[in-house]
Amino acid sequence: MVHADEKSLASQLEAADVLLVWDFLSDAVREAWPGDGPRPRWVHTPSAGVDRLLPELADGRDTVITNARGVFDQPIAEYVAGLVLAMAKDFRGTWELQRQRRWRHRETFRVGGSRAVVVGSGPIGRAIGRTLMALGVNVDLVGRTARDGDPEFGRVHATASLHGPDGLLGTADWVVCVAPLTEESRGMFDASAFARMKPEAHFINVGRGQHVVEADLVDALLKHRIKGAALDVFAQEPLTTDSGLWDVPGLLVSPHMSGDTVGWRDDLAEQFLDNFDRWEAGEPLLNVVDKHLGYVPTKPASHPEVS
Amino acid sequence: MVHADEKSLASQLEAADVLLVWDFLSDAVREAWPGDGPRPRWVHTPSAGVDRLLPELADGRDTVITNARGVFDQPIAEYVAGLVLAMAKDFRGTWELQRQRRWRHRETFRVGGSRAVVVGSGPIGRAIGRTLMALGVNVDLVGRTARDGDPEFGRVHATASLHGPDGLLGTADWVVCVAPLTEESRGMFDASAFARMKPEAHFINVGRGQHVVEADLVDALLKHRIKGAALDVFAQEPLTTDSGLWDVPGLLVSPHMSGDTVGWRDDLAEQFLDNFDRWEAGEPLLNVVDKHLGYVPTKPASHPEVS
Repeated sequence: MVHADEKSLASQLEAADVLLVWDFLSDAVREAWPGDGPRPRWVHTPSAGVDRLLPELADGRDTVITNARGVFDQPIAEYVAGLVLAMAKDFRGTWELQRQRRWRHRETFRVGGSRAVVVGSGPIGRAIGRTLMALGVNVDLVGRTARDGDPEFGRVHATASLHGPDGLLGTADWVVCVAPLTEESRGMFDASAFARMKPEAHFINVGRGQHVVEADLVDALLKHRIKGAALDVFAQEPLTTDSGLWDVPGLLVSPHMSGDTVGWRDDLAEQFLDNFDRWEAGEPLLNVVDKHLGYVPTKPASHPEVS
Repeated sequence: MVHADEKSLASQLEAADVLLVWDFLSDAVREAWPGDGPRPRWVHTPSAGVDRLLPELADGRDTVITNARGVFDQPIAEYVAGLVLAMAKDFRGTWELQRQRRWRHRETFRVGGSRAVVVGSGPIGRAIGRTLMALGVNVDLVGRTARDGDPEFGRVHATASLHGPDGLLGTADWVVCVAPLTEESRGMFDASAFARMKPEAHFINVGRGQHVVEADLVDALLKHRIKGAALDVFAQEPLTTDSGLWDVPGLLVSPHMSGDTVGWRDDLAEQFLDNFDRWEAGEPLLNVVDKHLGYVPTKPASHPEVS
């Protein structure tokens, strides 16, 4: 086993059979990837998103990509449920008043009976939807393609059903983005999307910063087109001290931590080691990414698995 | 119908058949209550707690007290679930860092699999327990007396089982107080109770301020005997600007608002009017308080109902 950093990676890639991208927030792999030469046959990223590997690793060659599908489901679902409750109950307002030593009773909102649209129908989106439903929220789940008969959500809606005068965006009290970042989903939350939402709606992004046109979100908040938003991910991370996003009224900012609960790195390492055992035993790998879709499909991928 | 304020109440009480205590945070009724003279036959408080009416209204005479049982169940359950998630995910820390424009990733805690002890087995306590269970929390419900075979919680524990070396207080990540305020429960969360809790535990009070010995809680927080606490109720309300509770490290303060969601006053008025229809029709009233227990028992009260 060889450890590589961002500088040495390019020179070591051609000798590697397997690459574990432990620093999954780095773009080093995509930048170092050999166009034609020898390359690892298997690349594992201990993250849910694989957007930092694609499209460079998506050519026709036989490199398999696996991800951390599953590890982040419940942590992120709890985080989003917490944000929904915190926004409904205005906890930030309460704690700001506490800081000012001011007692100011306000009425807050019920979460039960409200409506959420969760954009992203993978295991994290499903866990978010399930958790919100447990709190009495009516949930519409949105995936790439529509399908009926989902055992938990009934109909899963297609992305196209978000827009239009009768679109789902106009029905939601909570719009949650947890989609994989692909060419189709990049920038999907822009001025036209925020214009479709209700003035009482809140937007939550735990997907990727590039799903959101940040200037459009800021504009929507400043003009009260929507009531509030929470971003855990950003186009540029970390946010710099002089970023304008820190103090937009109604915007909650957190440092890309929604899925990171105590023990998460151990969980991620165990998940890789389990897959590595399969690799050495010649068994099919788990969580193989469909490199053309850009995520692990819920149904088995159509491409051949490594054996 | 006659409207009375704190000054005119005493002179109007003896002519009244029915008293609606709309300002349920006032002690005026207890102070104005006639010792022996004519008095209302029915007093309704649009609150869950009746501690501002007792013990003065609990003598042997036939005045019936009813309360707002039911209206606050789901709002307070959501509020407590929100606090649990917010504390597990350290939202206050995140928003304080946001105010300082600082990006600092931290690991947070899972709520699923943690343990809560909910002290108070009335409808609000049950709603809190149910909501926490929906988030994957293991819940022990504590009431005045132990009973087995509860359809939702299995065993309901007696208050006595909180203490002792193997007591429930030592098992909990979250200790939630939502008990009625009675002579038995007054001051039950004191230094000895906080000493039983785990250093990682959080304490939440949505019951009454008098359940807590506030100086002992502050001491437990300052000495890191427990990790954090959230108080929505206080011995003296509102908190004055110079109260020491505003800036205790690890203490979240909110202004007695956990149950007050938009429309709550309408809900409370409707609940009273529904009972008033029953009164006028000579039907039994709903939500009759057992004046000796100090709350509406889940099983029918043993005293005769008004007809």
